[in-house]
Amino acid sequence: MNAPAPRATTLGWSDLDLAAVATAKVLAADAVEKVGNGHPGTAISLAPAAYLLYQNVMRHDPADTHWLGRDRFVLSAGHSSLTQYVQLFLGGFGLEMHDLETLRTWGSKTPGHPEFRHTDGVEITTGPLGTGLASAVGMAMASRRERGLLDPDAPAGTSPFDHFVYVVAGDGCLQEGISSEASSLAGTQELGNLILIWDDNHISIEGDTDISFTEDVLKRYEAYGWHTQKVDWTNGGSEYVEDVDALAAAIEAAKAVTDKPSIIDLRTIMAWPSPTVQGSHNAHGNKLGAEEVAGLKSVLGLDPEASFAIAPEVLAHTRSLGQRGAAAKAEWEISYAAWRDANPERAALLDRLVARELPADLAEGLPTFEAGTSLATRAASGKVLAALAAPLPELWGGSADLAGSNNTTMAGEPSFLPTHRSTHEFTGNPYGRTLHFGIREHGMGAILNGISLHGLTRPYGGTFLTFSDFMRGAVRLTAIMGVGVTYVWTHDSVGVGEDGPTHQPIEHLAALRAMPGLAIVRPSDANETAAAWLAILQRDEPAGLILSRQNLPVVPRGTDGFAQVQVDKGAYVLLEGSTGTPDVILVATGSEVQLAVAAREQLEADGVSTRVVSAPCLEWFAEQDESYRASVLPREVRARVSVEAGVAMPWAGIVGDAGRSVSIEHYGASADAVTLFREFGFTPEAVVAAARASL
Amino acid sequence: MNAPAPRATTLGWSDLDLAAVATAKVLAADAVEKVGNGHPGTAISLAPAAYLLYQNVMRHDPADTHWLGRDRFVLSAGHSSLTQYVQLFLGGFGLEMHDLETLRTWGSKTPGHPEFRHTDGVEITTGPLGTGLASAVGMAMASRRERGLLDPDAPAGTSPFDHFVYVVAGDGCLQEGISSEASSLAGTQELGNLILIWDDNHISIEGDTDISFTEDVLKRYEAYGWHTQKVDWTNGGSEYVEDVDALAAAIEAAKAVTDKPSIIDLRTIMAWPSPTVQGSHNAHGNKLGAEEVAGLKSVLGLDPEASFAIAPEVLAHTRSLGQRGAAAKAEWEISYAAWRDANPERAALLDRLVARELPADLAEGLPTFEAGTSLATRAASGKVLAALAAPLPELWGGSADLAGSNNTTMAGEPSFLPTHRSTHEFTGNPYGRTLHFGIREHGMGAILNGISLHGLTRPYGGTFLTFSDFMRGAVRLTAIMGVGVTYVWTHDSVGVGEDGPTHQPIEHLAALRAMPGLAIVRPSDANETAAAWLAILQRDEPAGLILSRQNLPVVPRGTDGFAQVQVDKGAYVLLEGSTGTPDVILVATGSEVQLAVAAREQLEADGVSTRVVSAPCLEWFAEQDESYRASVLPREVRARVSVEAGVAMPWAGIVGDAGRSVSIEHYGASADAVTLFREFGFTPEAVVAAARASL
Repeated sequence: MNAPAPRATTLGWSDLDLAAVATAKVLAADAVEKVGNGHPGTAISLAPAAYLLYQNVMRHDPADTHWLGRDRFVLSAGHSSLTQYVQLFLGGFGLEMHDLETLRTWGSKTPGHPEFRHTDGVEITTGPLGTGLASAVGMAMASRRERGLLDPDAPAGTSPFDHFVYVVAGDGCLQEGISSEASSLAGTQELGNLILIWDDNHISIEGDTDISFTEDVLKRYEAYGWHTQKVDWTNGGSEYVEDVDALAAAIEAAKAVTDKPSIIDLRTIMAWPSPTVQGSHNAHGNKLGAEEVAGLKSVLGLDPEASFAIAPEVLAHTRSLGQRGAAAKAEWEISYAAWRDANPERAALLDRLVARELPADLAEGLPTFEAGTSLATRAASGKVLAALAAPLPELWGGSADLAGSNNTTMAGEPSFLPTHRSTHEFTGNPYGRTLHFGIREHGMGAILNGISLHGLTRPYGGTFLTFSDFMRGAVRLTAIMGVGVTYVWTHDSVGVGEDGPTHQPIEHLAALRAMPGLAIVRPSDANETAAAWLAILQRDEPAGLILSRQNLPVVPRGTDGFAQVQVDKGAYVLLEGSTGTPDVILVATGSEVQLAVAAREQLEADGVSTRVVSAPCLEWFAEQDESYRASVLPREVRARVSVEAGVAMPWAGIVGDAGRSVSIEHYGASADAVTLFREFGFTPEAVVAAARASL
Repeated sequence: MNAPAPRATTLGWSDLDLAAVATAKVLAADAVEKVGNGHPGTAISLAPAAYLLYQNVMRHDPADTHWLGRDRFVLSAGHSSLTQYVQLFLGGFGLEMHDLETLRTWGSKTPGHPEFRHTDGVEITTGPLGTGLASAVGMAMASRRERGLLDPDAPAGTSPFDHFVYVVAGDGCLQEGISSEASSLAGTQELGNLILIWDDNHISIEGDTDISFTEDVLKRYEAYGWHTQKVDWTNGGSEYVEDVDALAAAIEAAKAVTDKPSIIDLRTIMAWPSPTVQGSHNAHGNKLGAEEVAGLKSVLGLDPEASFAIAPEVLAHTRSLGQRGAAAKAEWEISYAAWRDANPERAALLDRLVARELPADLAEGLPTFEAGTSLATRAASGKVLAALAAPLPELWGGSADLAGSNNTTMAGEPSFLPTHRSTHEFTGNPYGRTLHFGIREHGMGAILNGISLHGLTRPYGGTFLTFSDFMRGAVRLTAIMGVGVTYVWTHDSVGVGEDGPTHQPIEHLAALRAMPGLAIVRPSDANETAAAWLAILQRDEPAGLILSRQNLPVVPRGTDGFAQVQVDKGAYVLLEGSTGTPDVILVATGSEVQLAVAAREQLEADGVSTRVVSAPCLEWFAEQDESYRASVLPREVRARVSVEAGVAMPWAGIVGDAGRSVSIEHYGASADAVTLFREFGFTPEAVVAAARASL
């Protein structure tokens, strides 16, 4: 008995389309079967929806996956990577049958989860559930901001920069708190360009979701202010029909609602029409087995003996997307060219943004801070951001409800917010610049990723360093993807003071430095803070800027023995010892550099030649060549002391067997910062004692 | 002009009660004013609600804050610690005026945020928003499980183990994703004993919440399956009346709904009736200033010149809670004694649980695994849990939707779930044992904390190690509080294989070891896994058990040169070198111990005396005395190699200047595990090479 074909008459699907969808299902099964593991079920049941999106709905061009005007597709249910890979194959985005045959194997273009920069047409790395959906919110936000920079006056839907963001998410995505955070904010932001298809298959790894997920999801999204629709392919359980017409109509309705994000509850049966495992979690994360795959092929009217097979005419038909995409792009080029002609300055800005270049004279506009004054590095960062506001319109950001504490607001810049949401404190503008994430750190991280991935702007987001713990999932994806997101983590030590242990970072510097691909930059004074921002912008890579709550002295530069700022090298000799080769080297970061400077004075007074190294970024220092590193930390000087108000773990390799670390290996306490530093042994005397022990 | 007094006529509040509430408000203002920082606003406006809870609603006894039958109070809005401290003072729980005067200062009983074990009457450390609410869900779950162990047949509401869990949460708590995760699960679990008061003051640190928090919260909670009510003290903005009667009635209604958790939307004006800062974020996290505090006192009819003042008759009245609490407890003791008489075996169990003792013969019942076989440590862990099921009824747990992968289900034990939520895969029982958290790692962590804090049982929860990132906020609170929660983190390296970089831990071992107070235990084979569970249970402290996806050889014990298992020491000599003092020491953990064993064979064949140290827990090893540590890692043996499939950061201090680390300093890839280990340099040959380089 054959399974009924998808209902797509209004849409006008031909037999070739229907054959393509059937083929998509069996290719997913074949690919998992061959490698022996993976996630076939969702890719099988979602094939009609994915085909609809890729072939009929989305504006994109297989020949130019970086086309500015393209719609974005985010597979938040990343384990179902075949949902996307099969469409990238059918549509001709660069994947061929061989790539499906090498699913999940070393060196293939088809890894277990979609990976950004690895497979053409994949916009984002997904897998950790919920993160894709949250990043899609960021893409939708970025789209509005970019339009505001480039084409703010075009009527809605008429700009070459208008497009949609489509997300496919599963039950797991909606269970994760990160999706709640981002979805609530998407409602506040009224992101009409965001369309979420929820694959409501009622199955997760532990089986029927009734054991843990009984909420009324659409009611929840209504509560967030979303437009909600349901498309039930099970017809209440009576008969399964892949009603693609109904889904297409729902998508059209969603597109027509321009002041709300949309969710479409697409009720499916996982792995349908696999003969025996449909609707079962056994189809979720395992190969189906040869017999079941053959059965699936039979019920779809395909040859049960053939694997990785596609009829040439079917492939030719699906690859005709190339012509349609090219035509769509050609049409777009006309309006784009008209826009360029009418907006030469904005076109120049766009060219700079696409090239990810910085204005040549950016460094000259940065503030410098006078020696002898005192300023928290978070405050210095705020002044740097103020100076960057005019020359760098692509730089924007905000905070997870700690704007005043993180100093993340560029003075005078409007909030990115529907106008009617303006408050006493903040004036909103849909094209505004100041982001208000609410108390949603994890959502913030993923949204920053989405903004960056969207392509033209550079986002930053702030919270207290201790709450980097709440967002590590998103930060790791920043690092894996290597995108230029800057985290502004302030209140960077027990210097937080009275708020006590829950708010005082201890292990966070170590934990973040452990993450490959993330630069942790902890400047020691205001001028290092300015240089840190510049280096971060120049590198355009994942970075965490670690800033103090408390005031720090601004040290002299180029006088009194103090070196010029060299943050970009990661570590440098701030103060030389009084003899050629020092007796001891004090290496410090951030607020503890002043302790090293004070300790050096005592040590030198006692005849101990003492070098002070400021080490704002160990990752950048590790990138320097061996001779530079040896010039800062000569091998022959084994007496070394690290001074940092965090655990010593990252310093063991630097101070070595003879060295000592002035560190804190326990949680903090609630008291004023001065008391805490003293009680926890962060004093010049303690540094001197460590230096003597190391000598 | 005086502010109107709270409306509490039905409740029968006397003038002394009204004076106590007014005093509570000004004491909060005074305390912040004296130290110069803190959060006065919410403590001022919530004083009537807090007084209602402490004096009229909750069943508790100031003289016995560990009373088994007490209601629990969780201040999820932990920054408003004065909301709780002032009531602990008024009610006589051990705080005196001096403690309010020393708020947020070194050594005081009144730190910035409530701290468990630090202040009597504080049930949980809060501060990171949303975590308290999520842990309260765990407390409510634990209450049901404990009742099931001790008094399952008592009609609802009649058992000495029946009580309520009250939570006060703010806007920030409800924005954090963790509250969404836990609240959704609370709905599924139908936790009728959980009552949440949401302080709906429409203010967060960035001011009016309209900029980021516009969702319909009650609708969202309806979607979760909660009972919802609203009490509007602003009367729609027309007139502010602290209608305590209405709040009390809502709480009674909430108590009467026994099959749903309840949320009460309490609309307040922050800091009311402070003359000029009420309703402003300026009252949130700053002292009010002398003039404002005086104004507040005036408007409340109190002496504007007096600070930290309370009329003796007012204090005497509030301290009469002591008599009421003692009477309530005495009444409870009658039913408790009756229960003990009727249930001698259960009473004996309870005594053991209260003492947190393990059965004496627990170790003997653990499985042993035969040398020469091969088993993933996650599978071994599953067998250990099966063996612990009968002797340790207090041990329970589950997974964030990865039960089959984490091996966290004790075979045959029912799920903790309302019966009607049973599925094809799992049979539910309200007193069941297997927890289904859904795909909600952060919520799981906080729920585990709440279960543990509730006092009698020992919870564990599993997910993939890579997703420890999603739950660090909760894990840190486990560690800060020092509660006996066990995290079962499986799939502990690139050995995950095909799922690729998002699912392969690289930096996680380092990042978790950086956290003070958390033991990270990574056994190398099945027998070490059993010993790890035993040591974790004996210690009853925060622990993360790190387990392999892939099979690992079970090594001989006490023969062929292999030592007996000594996991409790953290690290031990597994295989001695062929000479007295070895030439080189290979230190490895988990799945990499087999590489060290194989490398040793090659090295010994070449005449290099090689010791293999298995180091399942660096934290426990660090606790051993110096002589033991030196016996394992003799100072004179400087040639050392660490072998662990993670970043080398934690090993630098162990291998020292001459040492080498076989590690991985970049993200993984999607391929089979064998290929990945080979491609990423985890081979006996690579260990041999590192050893030679170290010699």
